[in-house]
Parts: sequence; structure tokens; C-alpha cells
Amino acid sequence: MAKEPLFSPEPGRSETKEAEGSAEHRLATSLYIPAGQCPPQLRLTNRPLGTSPTVMEKMCADEVPLTASSSEKQETVCIFGTGDFGKSLGFKMLQCGYSVVFGSRNPQVSSLLPRGAEVLSYSNAALKSDVIILAMRREHYEVLTELVDSLNGKILVDVSNNLKINQYPESNAEYLAQLVPGANVVKAFNTISAWALQSGTLDASRQVFVCGNDSKAKHRVMDIARTLGLTPLDQGSLVAANEIENYPLQLFPMWRLPFYLSSVLCVFFFVYCAIREVIYPYVNAKTDATFRLVISIPNRVFPITALTLLALVYLPGVLAAILQLYRGTKYSRFPNWLDHWMLCRKQLGLVALGFAFLHVIYTLVIPIRYYVRWRLKNGTITQVLANKDSPFSTSTAWLNDSYLALGILGFFLFLLLGITSLPSVSNMVNWREFRFVQSKLGYLTLILCTAHTLVYGGKRFLSPGILRWSLPSAYVLALIIPCSVLVMKFILIMPCIDKILMRIRQGWERNSQYSKSALNGKSDI
Amino acid sequence: MAKEPLFSPEPGRSETKEAEGSAEHRLATSLYIPAGQCPPQLRLTNRPLGTSPTVMEKMCADEVPLTASSSEKQETVCIFGTGDFGKSLGFKMLQCGYSVVFGSRNPQVSSLLPRGAEVLSYSNAALKSDVIILAMRREHYEVLTELVDSLNGKILVDVSNNLKINQYPESNAEYLAQLVPGANVVKAFNTISAWALQSGTLDASRQVFVCGNDSKAKHRVMDIARTLGLTPLDQGSLVAANEIENYPLQLFPMWRLPFYLSSVLCVFFFVYCAIREVIYPYVNAKTDATFRLVISIPNRVFPITALTLLALVYLPGVLAAILQLYRGTKYSRFPNWLDHWMLCRKQLGLVALGFAFLHVIYTLVIPIRYYVRWRLKNGTITQVLANKDSPFSTSTAWLNDSYLALGILGFFLFLLLGITSLPSVSNMVNWREFRFVQSKLGYLTLILCTAHTLVYGGKRFLSPGILRWSLPSAYVLALIIPCSVLVMKFILIMPCIDKILMRIRQGWERNSQYSKSALNGKSDI
Amino acid sequence: MAKEPLFSPEPGRSETKEAEGSAEHRLATSLYIPAGQCPPQLRLTNRPLGTSPTVMEKMCADEVPLTASSSEKQETVCIFGTGDFGKSLGFKMLQCGYSVVFGSRNPQVSSLLPRGAEVLSYSNAALKSDVIILAMRREHYEVLTELVDSLNGKILVDVSNNLKINQYPESNAEYLAQLVPGANVVKAFNTISAWALQSGTLDASRQVFVCGNDSKAKHRVMDIARTLGLTPLDQGSLVAANEIENYPLQLFPMWRLPFYLSSVLCVFFFVYCAIREVIYPYVNAKTDATFRLVISIPNRVFPITALTLLALVYLPGVLAAILQLYRGTKYSRFPNWLDHWMLCRKQLGLVALGFAFLHVIYTLVIPIRYYVRWRLKNGTITQVLANKDSPFSTSTAWLNDSYLALGILGFFLFLLLGITSLPSVSNMVNWREFRFVQSKLGYLTLILCTAHTLVYGGKRFLSPGILRWSLPSAYVLALIIPCSVLVMKFILIMPCIDKILMRIRQGWERNSQYSKSALNGKSDI
Repeated sequence: MAKEPLFSPEPGRSETKEAEGSAEHRLATSLYIPAGQCPPQLRLTNRPLGTSPTVMEKMCADEVPLTASSSEKQETVCIFGTGDFGKSLGFKMLQCGYSVVFGSRNPQVSSLLPRGAEVLSYSNAALKSDVIILAMRREHYEVLTELVDSLNGKILVDVSNNLKINQYPESNAEYLAQLVPGANVVKAFNTISAWALQSGTLDASRQVFVCGNDSKAKHRVMDIARTLGLTPLDQGSLVAANEIENYPLQLFPMWRLPFYLSSVLCVFFFVYCAIREVIYPYVNAKTDATFRLVISIPNRVFPITALTLLALVYLPGVLAAILQLYRGTKYSRFPNWLDHWMLCRKQLGLVALGFAFLHVIYTLVIPIRYYVRWRLKNGTITQVLANKDSPFSTSTAWLNDSYLALGILGFFLFLLLGITSLPSVSNMVNWREFRFVQSKLGYLTLILCTAHTLVYGGKRFLSPGILRWSLPSAYVLALIIPCSVLVMKFILIMPCIDKILMRIRQGWERNSQYSKSALNGKSDI
Repeated sequence: MAKEPLFSPEPGRSETKEAEGSAEHRLATSLYIPAGQCPPQLRLTNRPLGTSPTVMEKMCADEVPLTASSSEKQETVCIFGTGDFGKSLGFKMLQCGYSVVFGSRNPQVSSLLPRGAEVLSYSNAALKSDVIILAMRREHYEVLTELVDSLNGKILVDVSNNLKINQYPESNAEYLAQLVPGANVVKAFNTISAWALQSGTLDASRQVFVCGNDSKAKHRVMDIARTLGLTPLDQGSLVAANEIENYPLQLFPMWRLPFYLSSVLCVFFFVYCAIREVIYPYVNAKTDATFRLVISIPNRVFPITALTLLALVYLPGVLAAILQLYRGTKYSRFPNWLDHWMLCRKQLGLVALGFAFLHVIYTLVIPIRYYVRWRLKNGTITQVLANKDSPFSTSTAWLNDSYLALGILGFFLFLLLGITSLPSVSNMVNWREFRFVQSKLGYLTLILCTAHTLVYGGKRFLSPGILRWSLPSAYVLALIIPCSVLVMKFILIMPCIDKILMRIRQGWERNSQYSKSALNGKSDI
Repeated sequence: MAKEPLFSPEPGRSETKEAEGSAEHRLATSLYIPAGQCPPQLRLTNRPLGTSPTVMEKMCADEVPLTASSSEKQETVCIFGTGDFGKSLGFKMLQCGYSVVFGSRNPQVSSLLPRGAEVLSYSNAALKSDVIILAMRREHYEVLTELVDSLNGKILVDVSNNLKINQYPESNAEYLAQLVPGANVVKAFNTISAWALQSGTLDASRQVFVCGNDSKAKHRVMDIARTLGLTPLDQGSLVAANEIENYPLQLFPMWRLPFYLSSVLCVFFFVYCAIREVIYPYVNAKTDATFRLVISIPNRVFPITALTLLALVYLPGVLAAILQLYRGTKYSRFPNWLDHWMLCRKQLGLVALGFAFLHVIYTLVIPIRYYVRWRLKNGTITQVLANKDSPFSTSTAWLNDSYLALGILGFFLFLLLGITSLPSVSNMVNWREFRFVQSKLGYLTLILCTAHTLVYGGKRFLSPGILRWSLPSAYVLALIIPCSVLVMKFILIMPCIDKILMRIRQGWERNSQYSKSALNGKSDI
């Protein structure tokens, strides 16, 4: 199935399961065929806002490769494989001043390669450079066994990806290192798409994860990445290759728990509200309230989910503190579920913000709804006809305005938290500022949103009419977790308990064999 | 005309057409005059959230240049020209540990230069360093012809900009390379403003585009840029200088097509709606509905423009697929207009999001409007006086709530797409995730927004009253492109067609001379 | 008091005043104790969206350090101190391919250190490497005086922080340099948290400020930072250490002025409106209007504050221009208050945007409010009973719709300005584009928002009923500053004045001793 990205200028890139490896981009290859034609998308890297194509066409007229006019001896890089990715990488390298030699099984079939590049057989190409980039599939690595001698001491760059996570017992790079033991294998470039290399519009990540056992080889490859305008990130030894290879195949791993959690909450509360507000009136009064499923009930489900998720952001921190108090030490691991929960708190918070946003819009459209306008009109008419007076109730005005104001302020702070968690914003603040925003403002948000729900309930909490088939209103259930978190947090920050917790977190242990070490560490940071 | 940037701390910077070249900043020069006074804006680079000036004044007391206390031999850089940019660059370099020698036509007039810097005549200054930064206008490069011997083998850094795009037949850097053939010319720093260098508040780009024919010279300059806290980006050989020089003169080149397109759409639909809703009632019933021009009609024009632009984001992808199917190969270039269209899809989408946002706010203010409140009141009164009953219509409630809900969800997804296209967010996701968001979520957004419009129309589509002067309602026109895109896309993802498209995108060609190459490439990526 | 950050995965980190220095993170140390257990949070750096823990556990099985399989000789780094920060840094370094030797007072108490690291006494550890990272408190630097000989010529990296800003007369790094004069002291890593290093989730800044008097030593440390996946930024000589040490202790220094200013404005206008709208009716008519304090009055205070702050963003630029015109030169410093004001314009603008956002939401909830619904209902009923007609007023509809439309468009442009000031967005545009947005669009926003307020006032300006106790409506006060700014700006851009200003900004001076220099500089940039 072919998909086109919305906002990205990637034309007709088919989303095969091979991630970047396959790289069957029209642009990537169309560059090489009609000699004399100039690719309008050949632009300066890192310029998403683009440049005028007319200027570029002038550039092209000067005959790519751009460094042709340089008389100086250039560094040569060898690329094995003439697929889309190999070609794109080669083109980019030529553009950045490298000499490029392609290694191919059939060097004579090379009409599509970028001008300026040489094409030789594998063994001849290998002689030309000590950096060899393998733009070929793992399945074909075996051909390299015949070249073991010529590859001895060379830097072999593995750029491959697999079709699924953990497809093979060992990573492609480690497999390569076994096949060619004399070479220094470096894993790199697998997160970069051929199309991105070519067009210079690195809309997705510019990060290149690099790993390898030989640090000199690794640095050599990192330098190449830097020259190409990419951001290399050292990931340690070749053991990390497995994870680097899995990275491009992942689909939001940290968002899964928040997503499942919010789905379960949504479905549960949707059914719960449907029973109370659609099925109950139908059974009791034969009223058709099915239209409530579209806006009224979602507008109960969304705020409840948002508030619960927001509370779940803070719950693990509270649990961790209780666990530390109970154990009397910080030097023991938390259960795995707690660790995982803590690591996806940011995502939990952002999903909660999404639901809060939906709640805001759903609430703001209320007065436009036909049902609401009809009820207002009908209420007025009924009142006129009944000649009944409805005096103004200041206390109702107070309650009503208060819960609106609390909600607005809570949402505003929530938005601030969301904006602060944007990578480029959080990168600008120091730790103290980050903690101030995420912790103090975060708890304030939770308090405001919980108060919003409490005041919304108002007097209705005590009314017996709140129960339908013994089911309380949904927002009563929604308050359980937030209130518990706030109460526990309140207990934890009481001076007597906070003092103990503080000492534990500074390394003190209630009954410890490491007390000496802890004391020793006091002068260290 | 002098302009002050809003959120940027640039005081009274005059926007002359000379881009950064002129650099007549008060701050940039006020630093040098009143000896002993300390510039409060001399702060750590890259700290937009700032530091307290009090601390900095202490720093200044220790006598700038900051490296004065170092006994170590420092690298010397020579700067020709003592204009604002030259001074700012020199100051920054002194701060970062370089020795700076200024070359000037009149070395004796040097009272305004940063303390710690030497000022000599051009030829004497050139002897001091092998890196010479030319902070002078292209018009004065001719003076360098007298210095050809002393500049032999030196690295000449061209930092100049022009007054307009493609002002001269060749770029300033290439002109310089012709004038001084013995030197290694490197183009760099032209995108950096003197004020930014000085104040450390690099609100605009920190990117330094570097190009040059000698890669050693280029790397030397890139190292200097890095030391100054900037991000150098290698752009290849000196041929790229032209584009680098044009870059600071550009004004949103990729936004032009979306901007023109949306202007045309807006004007057309505004006139169309004005005819139907203002002129028609005036002609037919002498009703003054001109006030509709302010909110009612814009609130028709904006959603129509948004939906059309959103569909136009997806149309080129569909056209590209059809073209590939028709041609039976991916190895031939698309027409230029299609290429350009594809490259500005992101901008098209963001403009569409802007209109969608306006539509949302315009819709939410509806109940506050005098006209709407008056109509509601009057409607109620009329109904009371007529003693007419208006029974509640469940089907109307369903339709009304559905189109609101569809609109809200569509807008929510649209916002998600917009947030994901923020550079710092898109830099965090891998290609698979990026495609998932931009393609799958993108099409879902288009479907929701189209459905929103369809349901909004509801039963009115069939009503004959919809035509005024044979003109259908504007939203009927708005549906044409989105529905066409969705239908075409639906056809393209049908298994039989998708399979062929897939093969084409993997390199297969219907009748091809390159089939062998395609087969050969199968093992490559 | 222990706080948990909201969206950040930092578990139970206690916020002591010691900033990062103390670093008492459970995770940071829990890694080392239960041998064989694997930390699920050991992930690739720079991957906030995370990786699946299951993959990582496989990695762990291969026995950390990850470079164990490498046969090559590795660079050794020595870390003095085995506190949380020392351990985390050591762990990270092992992971990135360094050999790590810990120096400790009690080397035998080393059970908690990362596997693969050696622990020796200070003096023995110092022999192993020429880079020594001091992960100890300043208070304990004195022990180093005994090691002066073994530290001679070594690179000493000071990573310490203090408890408060400017705690000691000299910075820790300078103090260290005095204690060990033979060593090359480099200040670095103090902005990085132990937890961030360990978990790889650098939610806050990845920036490492580096300073030192020896540039080779500095570059060595910067290379290490780069290898660890951090972004080193050269800050010059050791004089900068003071500021670098203060940085992590700062709490939004540039936001203080805008914050105080907006607080003062809010409180003043709140009291002002409360007098007019709550106390006045109570005194005059015994009406209880206290409920207005919750939404009605804030919804007057917020837009007034927003508009005033927005005008204050542009006022300093206008004042600066007037000052330059008056002085006839740009070569003299502005008063300090003006400089400081100009530097926090961005923050002023963003705070104004926050208030504008609140105003928008407060306005949009109007029709949901009980008070408003009650009034509408009651108004209708009264009218029905009085049988009074309320004809539709086109001019009211025009005024009402106009001020809503102006407000919406103003807010939309304001949001655009806010988005453009996001670091990752502003980093994408060139200076010309940045100025276009921040200056032209900024003034347009101010004009639209001022017009919004003017039209809102409408006919009421002339009505005598506007005064209560001689106090005019609050929005009348709100217009003073924006109108003044716009008038002054309008005068400044008149051709005759603009021409003079332009000349001044290009270096011309009315009566100047530097006129020759200015002329000389004409060819320079």
C-alpha cells in the first residue's frame, strides 16, 4: 500500500516494511537518467523553508559534482551497492567534496549513477578507499566472504535495516563483523532515508546513531556524517547495533502504555455514561437520548480521562516515595512496572493534554448545539407560558463561574506544561527551571483540575438523584485517583515525613551495610 | 524605514536592503567607546532565557578580552575591515580565545575597536595570520589586487552579502577567487548578524553555511565557527556560494505558492459568498445584509479554503502515483510544476491549518454575536406570540452534533499534524513514525474534515432553495477537490492497483532497457 | 521537600538547593547493586520517544561495559569522587568507550561502582590519566593540595555547583586553579544532571558550557562532551566560570521583569475594576455583584494587561529611536533600564500572549455562564411580557462583528508571533524573515488589537454614563500606552524623520569627532 506523507515533500514514497533499506524513491533515482536535466530539488541541506529552484538550476548548469573545479586531492569513499540508498548517499558525498567509487557486481550497468562517480567491481573498488559503505541487504553479505583479504583493515560501514524488530538472532553489523573479522565494522546511517539525503529536506531526524568497537573507525565515520550535515551520536560498541537497527522499525514505543491506558479508560467511561444517560432514560421513560452519544457523553468521557491520566502522571512518584520510606533506602530497585510507568510519564501527560483540549472545544461548542438552543428556547417559552419567575441566584452564579474559571486556569497551566515539554523549549531551560515547571506547576495544574471537577459537582454530590441503578455520576469516579494522589502527596510533604524521605534520598539507609560508603560519599557529588 | 523586531532584543536595527552586510547596530559599536563602561548585553551565548546582568558586570571588570589571563600561545585571525560586522566578529573571537588583528586602510583611526585587538595596515595584518576574514563590501575587493602576493596561500573568508538576489553575474566569493587566484576562498558567516554575534542572543538561525573548493581551508573555517558557538554546515564547493549569498535575502520562498493559492481561493470564495448572501438578498428583498461581510462570510470562506488547501496537500501524491502507473516506471521525471508543488506540501498544510484555526474561533464566537443573540431572542418571542410548538427533532440533533464532533476531531488531528511538523518534534521521530503521522493521520484528517462538510450540508444538498441565481452554496464547491482526492486515493489503494504501483516503486518497469539494472539492484539498498 | 517532575521521567528526585551537585537519584545508584539485574532505563541517548525495554535487557546480558569486546586500547579518564554524579558520569563514559578509573578516599568501599571501572586512591588514580574529573564538593578541594605534584600538568575538570548564586567570592573553578596552579582547570558538565546522564533522557538541556584558560585542555574536554552525546559550548576563559556556576541556580531571570510588570498591572486593574463594578453598585444600589470577581472582572483585566504588555514590547524600540534622534548619534550607550527592557521584549511578548489566550477562553465561555443565560432568558421574558419590540440594528451588528473579527485576527497574528519565537522555528528562518515576522507582523498585531479595543468601546466613549466616581472604564486606560506607541511610531516612519534616523544608524553623527572613522568604515561591513 502506497502512502504519501502529508506535510513532507516526499513524493509517492511507498511504505514497504523494509523501512529505509528499500528506498524506492522516484526522486532519488530520477536524478540520474535524463542527462542534462537538472533536479530542482537539489538544494542546500537543512533548509526546510527552501530555496528558489531557479537558482538551483543555475547551479546544475555548472555540472554536478560541485567540487569539480577543485584541484585538490580529495578523500575517497567507496560504496558497495548501487541501489537507491547507495546512489543517494554517493550523490550527497560528491556534493560535499568526497570522491566516490561504487562497487558493483555488474560495473558495466551503471548508467544511472551520479556523474563524477567511478564504478568498479567490488574488489577493485575496495582498493580505492579504506572506508567502504555497504549499501546492500544483509542477505547478500555472503559475497563479502570472497573479498575478505581486500577488506582486511578497512572500515566497513553497515547501513542496513531489517524488515522487523529482532529479525535475526544477531544484528546485521555483528553478523558482518563475524563474516569479515579483519575489518572494523561500524554501524551508521540506517536512520537516514535516501530521499532525505537527496532532497536536503530532513524533516524527520537528522540524527545518525553510530556504534562500533574501534573508536578510530567510529570517529572517521562520525566525521563523514558531520560533513554531510548530519548529527552523529556515539552509541558505544557494536553491541548497540541491534538496538540501532530496531530503532527505525519502532512505532512510538513510549506512547503505547499511555495509548492503551487512555483507550481502556475511554471505553469504560463511555459505556458507563451510555448506561446512565442513554439506556437508563430509555428503560425508565422510553426517551430517545441516543444523540447524546455524539457530544454530551464524549464531553464527559474526555475530561474524566484527562484528569485520571494527569493523576496517573503523579501517582508513580508518590508510590516511589512511599516505597522508599517503607524500605528505608533508595538503594534498591523499584518493580519493573513502576520503572516503566515512570519513564512514560511525559507521554501520559501529553495524552491527557490532548483529552483536555478536546474537552475544552467540546465545551465551547455547547451553545451552538441544536439541542442546547432548543432547550433554552423551550425553557424560556415554558416559563413565559407558566408565568413563573426565576430569580437570580448569586450562589449559583458563584459556583458556575468558579468551576469555569478553575477549568480555564487549569487548562492554561496544562498547556504551559505541554509547551515546556517541546524538545526545543526544554532544551533552553536549566534543570532547576525544568523541575519548577514540571513539578510545581504540574501539581498546581492537578489541584486546579481536581477543584474544577469538585466545584462542578457542587451540591449535586449530596443529592440522592445522582444514583441511577446505583451508579453514581461518572465524575464522582473520576475524582478517586486525583484526590488520592493529592492526599498522599500532602502527607508526604508534611515536615516530619519529608525530612526522613530527604535523608533517604541523600543516601542514608535505615539499616544498612553501606552506611560507611554513604558517609564516604558525602563529600562527593 | 526603521523597524524594531517584536520579540527579539534587537534595538532599533534598521532594515536596510543590505541584509546583514550593513550591520549598523548601536549595540555592536557602543561597546567600544566609553572605556571602562561595561556592555550589559555581553552574555554567554546560546542562552536566550538570559542571565542576570549584574553577574556580567563583574566579568567585565576583569577586563575584556576574557582570555587575557591565559599564558598560552593563541591562534591568530585577521579581519580586514573595521565596520560593525568586522568589529562584532572580532570581539566575539577575542572572547572565544583568538588573537585578533584588524587590517584597515587607516590603521590610526581605530579608537572604536575592541580592546585587545591590534590594528595594522592590510599588508601588515595579512602577515600575522593565514586566515583572513574580509569584512568589507564586494565593491572594495579591488584593493585586494594590490595584496595578491601577501594573500598567496592564505584562507580568505568571504562574509559579504548583496542588496538583492543574483545582483552580480557571479557570486562575491567566486569573484574574490578570481581576483586573488592564489588564495583559498571560503564563503561563510554571511547568515549571521553582527548584533547576534555580539549579544549572544541568536534568536534567528545559528547556522553558518560554508562552502569552498579547498576542503582543508573549509574545515579550518568550520572549526572557527564551532568555537564561536555556531553550527557550520558544509555546502560543497564555491559554486554553492551564489545560493549561500542569496539565502539571507530570501523571504519565505517556499511559502509563496501556498500564500498566493490561498489568497486566490479566499478572494474568489469571498466574492462568491458576497454575491449569494449580500447582493442577492439586497436585489431580491432590499435586505441590508452587509454586516455578514465581517464574520458570517469569512466563516464560510476560511473553512472552504482550509479544506481545499488540505486536499491540495494530498493531490500531488495521487497525481504522481497516477503518472507512475501511466508511464509504467518511476525512472522519469515529473513535470516541474508537480515537483514544486510536492516540495511545498508542508507549507500548504500549515496555511490550511491557519485557516482551520480561524474557522474554529469564528465559529466559537457565534453565540456572542449580537446578530445571533438578537435572532434567538426574536425567534423565541415570535414563537411565544404565535403560540407555535417546536417539537424536539432527534434526527436534527444527531446531524447537528455529528458535524460538530467531526469538525472537532478533524481539527484536533490537524493540530497534531501541525505540532508534528515543528522542527524539534519531527527531529525526534524516526521515518516510520513520521510517515505514520503525516500519511495515515493526514488522510484521516482529510476524511474527517470532508465528512464534517458533507454532514453540515446534510439534507440541504437536495433542497432546491440552495441555488441562488443558479449558484450553489459555496461549501458544495468546496467538496469537489477533497472528494476527488479521496476517491482517487481509494482507487489507488485497491489491492490490484496497489500491487502494480508497489512493483513500479521497487524499480520494476513495464518496458525497460534498465530491467537488468533493476534486477541487479535488487540486492542493493 | 520532595517534588516529582510532571512530564519528566525523573523518579522521586528531591529538589535540594544544591542543584545538580547532590544528585541523589535512586536510579543513578540502584544500577550498581543487585548484580545480574539489568536497568531497564539504560537506553540510547537522545531518544526521548524511547525504546522497548525488552531489547535493552538483551543488551545487558552481554555484560556492561559495552565496549568489553573491543580489543583496542582505550582512552582513560579519571574521576575523583564516587558520589551519584561521579558514578553516573563514569557509567556513561564506560558506555561510550572510555576506560574509567575512580579516585576515592576509601578505595575499598567500592561495591557500588559501575562494573568495568577501577577504584584507586586519589594519587594512584591520578597517575592513570591526564584528564581528571573532580566529582566532589568545593568544600573538599583542600585535599587536592596534598596531590599538587601528581596533578601537575593534568587537566582538572571542575563540575561542581553551589547552593546559591555568588556563594563564594570567586568561582569554584578559579578557586581550584589557585589551589593547584600547575594544572589546567576546565569548568564543564555542571549543567548536566546525573539522572539525565544515566537515563539518556535529556529532557532538559543537553548543553555543556565549557570554559578554561588553556584552549587545548578545553578542546579535550569538549571532545569528551561530544562523545557523550552532549553539546559543548565554549565560553572563553576561566573568568566565565562564575557565570557558568550560577547558571543552574537561576530561575527564569529574563522572565522576572515581565512577571512583576504583569502582576502589578493585573492587581491594579483588578482593584480598579472591582471598585467600579462591585463596590460602586453595592454602595449605590446595594446590589451583590461579587460573582463578577470570578469571570467578568478577570476578563477585563486580562485583555488590558495583554494589550499594555504588547505595547510595552514596542515602546523601548520607539524610545531608543527618539533617543538616537535627540543625541544625533548611535555611538552612545542607552540607559541601563532601556537596555534591560529591550533584552526582555521576547518574554514580555510571550506573557502578553498568555494573557491574550486567557482572554480568548474567558470570552468564549461567556454564553455557557449561568449569569449570561439567566440574563438572556430574563431579557426575553421581560420583553415578551412588556410586548416591546427590539428592531434589528445593522450598525450594532457591524460594530459588534467588527470588534470580534479584529480581536480574532489580532489573536491569530499574536499566536503566529508566539510560534515563530519557538527556538526550533526561529532557528529555521533567516534574519530577513525573522525581522519581517517580528517587526511587520508585530506592529500589525498591535494595530489590530488596539483597534479591537477601540471598536469595543465604540459609542460608549462619548457616553457620560461611562464614569463611575469619576473613574472611566478600564479599557479607556488600557488604550493610553498602545495609542501613544502607535502615534510615535507613525511619526518616526514619516519620510523626513526616517531619513535622519537611517543616516544615524548607518554611522552618521550630527557633530562628531569620529566622522572620519565613519567615512572610513563605509567600505566595511
